[in-house]
Amino acid sequence: MMKAHRKELWFNTESRRKLINITALIEKELEESNVLEGLILVNAMHITASVFINDDEVGLHSDFEKWLEGLAPEKPYSMYKHNTYEDNADAHLKRTIMGREVVVAITKGKLDLGPWEQIFYGEFDGKRKKRVLVKIIGE
Amino acid sequence: MMKAHRKELWFNTESRRKLINITALIEKELEESNVLEGLILVNAMHITASVFINDDEVGLHSDFEKWLEGLAPEKPYSMYKHNTYEDNADAHLKRTIMGREVVVAITKGKLDLGPWEQIFYGEFDGKRKKRVLVKIIGE
Amino acid sequence: MMKAHRKELWFNTESRRKLINITALIEKELEESNVLEGLILVNAMHITASVFINDDEVGLHSDFEKWLEGLAPEKPYSMYKHNTYEDNADAHLKRTIMGREVVVAITKGKLDLGPWEQIFYGEFDGKRKKRVLVKIIGE
Repeated sequence: MMKAHRKELWFNTESRRKLINITALIEKELEESNVLEGLILVNAMHITASVFINDDEVGLHSDFEKWLEGLAPEKPYSMYKHNTYEDNADAHLKRTIMGREVVVAITKGKLDLGPWEQIFYGEFDGKRKKRVLVKIIGE
Repeated sequence: MMKAHRKELWFNTESRRKLINITALIEKELEESNVLEGLILVNAMHITASVFINDDEVGLHSDFEKWLEGLAPEKPYSMYKHNTYEDNADAHLKRTIMGREVVVAITKGKLDLGPWEQIFYGEFDGKRKKRVLVKIIGE
Repeated sequence: MMKAHRKELWFNTESRRKLINITALIEKELEESNVLEGLILVNAMHITASVFINDDEVGLHSDFEKWLEGLAPEKPYSMYKHNTYEDNADAHLKRTIMGREVVVAITKGKLDLGPWEQIFYGEFDGKRKKRVLVKIIGE
């Protein structure tokens, strides 16, 4: 009998952009699911945010900020057609580069991650409540 | 007993590049699968096309077009080594940014999407028949 | 009864950057798993490498190299804050564009790939042993 476990994680960042390590929150959901072998999907439920896997290193996070601003600048707002009633077109583009979701293997009841792999929530249009979906499927 | 459902969706766009909202087509496949809990994989079967999740807003789609042309211009064709017998190197690169696939949770028989999440087929080298694969796994 | 199969594939490239077609290695794991219907996750276990799907064409691979160097140059190392004790910040960014993982459908015991889809390991900080995880879930 296949097991399914679902959880929404809520975030409300104080700044427009922020990277938050959510690995421990995901491990907690995996534990509650009692799934030993399977797959876990973690995805942003909003289209101006990302879930991705990379290094928890402050210098790299600073590099990500500068790099994404170079590839998809926040301003001038007028450079984007999406920004008629909004100002977050850049956040849609930044999240596209960083990705919407990760799928992680579950092995012997643990997240099957490499030595430096950490799961992050990437917020690119914050200062309001937004959600991440955790869905676990397995046995 | 795990259920599996498979469907190919065919597209033939009139323009080289086009974004098509396929959310309703995916919902139809989910309904036919009778899966209540599981995962759905939707991927481009061609390497110059994308399946991605973002907003169904015409201004944003125009921003995507301009942005992708800036990051991976179609022309001059001679700037790419892939374009000896082809002219679609830019489409391989654009699809890389937009992504090949999405994995979406299935909860209580529905696509478990956030409020603005819509599933798109992104064509970057159209004017011919191309396919998207829908694979549903669950119970 | 759901089946699960897990394998680590090891790579040690002679150059800093290299693209390796691993499709045959993944097919071999699928065969060993005896899974007929399901999903296969293939992901880099390191955060400066990628698993992605694209064309096995040498001109395109040259285009990828030039394009990624344009979007996230290796040098000067001093342009990245991550490079205090390391020199691989560019590899973290390149892998972000190329993606960490692919999820592929399994249908009738075969990888359900389109006509030109090939699975690649993308190394962006090589010359040392690194791993790819293959996880198969299905029946």
